[in-house]
Amino acid sequence: MSINLLLKSNDVDGLQRVLNTYSAFEVADVIAGKIPEEQLLLFSVLSPKLAAETFDYLPPRVQKKLLKSLPSQKAATILNEMPPDDRTALLQHLPRAVFDEYIKLLSPEERTLSVSLLGYPEDSIGRMMTTDFITCKMNWTIQQVLNHIRAYGHDSETINVIYVVDDAGKLLDDIKIKEFLFAPQDYKVAQITTGNFISLSPYEKAEEAIRIFKKFDRIALPVIDSNGILLGIVTIDDVLRLMSKRATENIQKVGGSEALDEPYMEAPFSELMKKRARWLILLFIGEMFTATAMGFFEAEISKAVVLALFLPLIISSGGNAGSQSSTLIIRAMALGEVRVRDWWKVMKREILSGLCLGLILGCIGFTRVALWSAVSGIYGAHWLLVACTIFLALIGVVFWGSLFGSLLPMLLKKAGVDPAVASAPLIATIVDVTGIVIYFVIAAVVLKNYLL
Amino acid sequence: MSINLLLKSNDVDGLQRVLNTYSAFEVADVIAGKIPEEQLLLFSVLSPKLAAETFDYLPPRVQKKLLKSLPSQKAATILNEMPPDDRTALLQHLPRAVFDEYIKLLSPEERTLSVSLLGYPEDSIGRMMTTDFITCKMNWTIQQVLNHIRAYGHDSETINVIYVVDDAGKLLDDIKIKEFLFAPQDYKVAQITTGNFISLSPYEKAEEAIRIFKKFDRIALPVIDSNGILLGIVTIDDVLRLMSKRATENIQKVGGSEALDEPYMEAPFSELMKKRARWLILLFIGEMFTATAMGFFEAEISKAVVLALFLPLIISSGGNAGSQSSTLIIRAMALGEVRVRDWWKVMKREILSGLCLGLILGCIGFTRVALWSAVSGIYGAHWLLVACTIFLALIGVVFWGSLFGSLLPMLLKKAGVDPAVASAPLIATIVDVTGIVIYFVIAAVVLKNYLL
Repeated sequence: MSINLLLKSNDVDGLQRVLNTYSAFEVADVIAGKIPEEQLLLFSVLSPKLAAETFDYLPPRVQKKLLKSLPSQKAATILNEMPPDDRTALLQHLPRAVFDEYIKLLSPEERTLSVSLLGYPEDSIGRMMTTDFITCKMNWTIQQVLNHIRAYGHDSETINVIYVVDDAGKLLDDIKIKEFLFAPQDYKVAQITTGNFISLSPYEKAEEAIRIFKKFDRIALPVIDSNGILLGIVTIDDVLRLMSKRATENIQKVGGSEALDEPYMEAPFSELMKKRARWLILLFIGEMFTATAMGFFEAEISKAVVLALFLPLIISSGGNAGSQSSTLIIRAMALGEVRVRDWWKVMKREILSGLCLGLILGCIGFTRVALWSAVSGIYGAHWLLVACTIFLALIGVVFWGSLFGSLLPMLLKKAGVDPAVASAPLIATIVDVTGIVIYFVIAAVVLKNYLL
Repeated sequence: MSINLLLKSNDVDGLQRVLNTYSAFEVADVIAGKIPEEQLLLFSVLSPKLAAETFDYLPPRVQKKLLKSLPSQKAATILNEMPPDDRTALLQHLPRAVFDEYIKLLSPEERTLSVSLLGYPEDSIGRMMTTDFITCKMNWTIQQVLNHIRAYGHDSETINVIYVVDDAGKLLDDIKIKEFLFAPQDYKVAQITTGNFISLSPYEKAEEAIRIFKKFDRIALPVIDSNGILLGIVTIDDVLRLMSKRATENIQKVGGSEALDEPYMEAPFSELMKKRARWLILLFIGEMFTATAMGFFEAEISKAVVLALFLPLIISSGGNAGSQSSTLIIRAMALGEVRVRDWWKVMKREILSGLCLGLILGCIGFTRVALWSAVSGIYGAHWLLVACTIFLALIGVVFWGSLFGSLLPMLLKKAGVDPAVASAPLIATIVDVTGIVIYFVIAAVVLKNYLL
């Protein structure tokens, strides 16, 4: 019988029979798609082992709901069995009261561990590391290491890499499991070490882990303190998830809203509203200066309404060029390809880009005015001057947009602010205001004594 | 002596001595930072084994340059030793003539393999899989499997997962290396299989691999054909790189340019220009319709210049709301959180969001006009009507922006076009044109008989 039918007929025994033949992935999939009461029921019928495994695969939102509804005995088991890194992820953003309650459910040992992991800064490598790893000593034989893995490997996050430490816990090497399989069984560990290893610091930004994993083709990396003591390991599956999350946040910010904590369809409406409205209001207030700026040129507009007609075209071109620059630089900085100290190299590129792109758009704009006025005479006798104004304004605005769009993310980074804040809409807004000034000043110079 | 000094004094023996004590990563790091002639020199002094390893870690740009300059004997060795997946990545975008030349350098066996891998569609899972994996049979003992790994594991991309196949090559299970270590040595493979495995199809989009890896915490997944025959495996390090690349492309597109093939600082200027100019011109041409749209309302503008003052504010608000919606939806679709068939659910959210956000901005806009006119009288006797126009126009434009921004990516996807094309600047451009119409129509209705 299907899970849904069993649920409908409230057949707990049936559910128990069926679900316990499933793998943890499958159970997690089934549970994630149900309403909270059904989730609780389904989770309650699982064997303790399957429950613990399944819990790790559930989305954080479901994990939190389940923990809240489970009897505290069961919640304690689950929390104590969670891998330390997953537990950190779960605990780190809980309200204080809930956090305290859960911490109390942990065994003294696990509690000390979790508290120490949560002691590392938010978004640091320390917060994503696990302490379930396998170590060995230099003077062990390969055979001893393999026996050790057989004895203690069950609880380890991975046995694909084994860590060689000295008596003080200082990391001496990390060795792939395959090296142990390939080496003669009576060799000592010392005979297969190279002493060549790459390590992370727990205080570094989690992004640094992404960069290192991408560069060095590893599936796990050790985390050591300043004395070289092995504190934990970071595994590639967590890096993959982090990378996806960061990319999402970046894209959302570039699109001009705050990053959502949850998937779009699952984020509560009020949350969505808050995160979008804040930026939208900020942008709106910024954009209000366009009205102020245009106020200064009211006389010019009423004398030459034709100027107003081209206004959106001119200022949006600056905003578009600026959006391009800012997103290229934001991403390049996130990937570590461009650093703040490269600013002059970037500037040179963008100055040249801005001038070229401005020239291209300027020519198209000029041609458009020339063509229309040949056909319709809509721009009057001074069409050539209007065309020149458009031409020059486009060069100026696109140049300024490119320059500003690339400079702002670097300035933000320098000031310790997330450069992704320099979103396409923010750049467009700032360039709009300055674009109006550039446009009307050029118009005032070119059209003086003719239209103005 | 440092590499730089050795290079300067052209001390080939010295370079050979120093570099061959380095790891492949370190050599790759040194080479990547040098000019092409030095790269060739440095690469030439490496031992064949180190050269092959180092080559895999070099950026594609450097790989291509080196291959071109190396004597064909050496190029052949490198190409034949490359892992099949890395070789596919290198060969797939080469000009035809170069491709033919390199294919000829491959041994018959490797050539057949590469041609078959390149036979899968671009950006498919088939193009990213490797054929270097370890298989075993159901009736082998654990001891036999471990011996087999020792004998053949050296050339395998990973030994962390072993694949159980039948005599026809059909995949029966994938088993982690730790299961083999934990099981008694005289057990048969059949005794530790579960038959539970997740597999990929070579024709599926590479993005599907990202989704599955993220969901199932695996470090390697098998790729099978429609008959269940094991064709290859995909490893998580390649998925990590792909994910980073895709995120970059997505962010660049959202920012309104084409995706760059290379890092920002390394992309040739002409390439950068082309990729940016194409979109900028397209957006410019789209934005030209703002001038056309405004042409229809020229009379209104000359009668009430005050309308022009608020124009950038109104239309940009629509664009900003639209950018938010489109980027949220684009990302949610890329992650598989929102599918095209969910369009009505998304619409409902966005209709409500658009109305709420429009109302918020409308109120701020109204207040601003009211305040300024109380202080300065700049908006004349009919300030209340102007304020009402602004209020209503903001609701209309923001509502329309949100709706359109969320709908367009889904329509594009439905039409088989990459939804990321619905960039912030594109949405802004389209919403600008329609925003002008919405604004002036509302103004015409509200201000009729008063200002107009």
